Amino acid sequence: MEVIVPFSTDRPKSRLSGVLSPDERGEFARAMLDDVLDAVAAAGGEPRVLATDAVNVDPPVTVDDRPLTDAVNAALDARIGVDPEDDAGEGDAGTDGSQEPVAVVMADLALATPAALDRLFAAGRDADVAMAPGRGGGTNAFVASHPEFRVDYHGASYLDHREIAAEIGAEFVAVDSRRLGTDVDEPADLAEVLIHGEGRAATWLREAGFALDASEGRVAAVRK
Amino acid sequence: MEVIVPFSTDRPKSRLSGVLSPDERGEFARAMLDDVLDAVAAAGGEPRVLATDAVNVDPPVTVDDRPLTDAVNAALDARIGVDPEDDAGEGDAGTDGSQEPVAVVMADLALATPAALDRLFAAGRDADVAMAPGRGGGTNAFVASHPEFRVDYHGASYLDHREIAAEIGAEFVAVDSRRLGTDVDEPADLAEVLIHGEGRAATWLREAGFALDASEGRVAAVRK
Repeated sequence: MEVIVPFSTDRPKSRLSGVLSPDERGEFARAMLDDVLDAVAAAGGEPRVLATDAVNVDPPVTVDDRPLTDAVNAALDARIGVDPEDDAGEGDAGTDGSQEPVAVVMADLALATPAALDRLFAAGRDADVAMAPGRGGGTNAFVASHPEFRVDYHGASYLDHREIAAEIGAEFVAVDSRRLGTDVDEPADLAEVLIHGEGRAATWLREAGFALDASEGRVAAVRK
Repeated sequence: MEVIVPFSTDRPKSRLSGVLSPDERGEFARAMLDDVLDAVAAAGGEPRVLATDAVNVDPPVTVDDRPLTDAVNAALDARIGVDPEDDAGEGDAGTDGSQEPVAVVMADLALATPAALDRLFAAGRDADVAMAPGRGGGTNAFVASHPEFRVDYHGASYLDHREIAAEIGAEFVAVDSRRLGTDVDEPADLAEVLIHGEGRAATWLREAGFALDASEGRVAAVRK
């Protein structure tokens, strides 16, 4: 399954500006991207980075500097969209007329494991749209095969995407994963990486001096 | 499987005091408890409430006013603990000498579904300890059958519990569930209930005037 991993090279992780410098945010974002790409490959996916500008990674890269929603929808169009001049969907369509599913997995899912992605991919082979929501109703990862499914990442996008699926008659399933549901945006999220992360992002944080601190009740990542 | 659901009748959900009155917090905590009890029963579990004081619910109730850690450990002692005068573990021990597992599921997991609990219970039948972590390294739900496993709910208890399991040679598995990983403690958690909740707690919030608001970027639950 092709797995598109959107990645912003422009001011990445700005909500971490209180605890990381711009250079550090770039390094940390890159460590998370590498972790996600590794997990995708280990789960049998074929990763492709969808970046706002050139980025030097092993997997193939598509550069698209449009906003996230537009760039992802263009990618969906090219893969599962039905060519209006070709109703049979030649090329991508399977023998039963269904499309080969495509996945979109955000680059800041630092807790993603092959097992968690495997559940997402399996759900996306069974349903027209399978989606792992994030905190606050975000859409952290999904697999879609329905030719009319498109995204809109504004606001509580998970609810919007569920509604879009209903409108086009696509079967929708939610994937219940804390690992895929944890996108790393804010300082409070760094504790999750230290607690559960097993890859480069967790190592990067530790080497940058972050450690867990439970002295204030709730566990936080603090910098020495 | 017996499923112990700890519930505090004393100043429940104090971290919601900025948005709910004491009476409202009591009502909301009770709605979440009822949702959890329903989900446990629908998943085939036999719920038992472990409350700090009398509470009027259908399932059996054990009253224990000690701190959470002590009360849960007493319950574990009584169920999976090996009587020191009876090494064979007569009574609770299966034919292979293993204990019948027991689950402990927090009463504020308002997003818990039978499917999510079913995954936890299944994992707990295979491993000595199966655990669903919460945000900040909390321990939201677990199943244990190892006679020496005990809890300590302070700090990043998930990490402590993993270490306790390692020390006693118990096989430990993490259960990757966003639904079980979401305990409702703070105002920001209320949005999760409105987005994903399907039971009494979500209904209670809506009837109390809460609705989702995405106008500030991140989706929040605001009161009309």
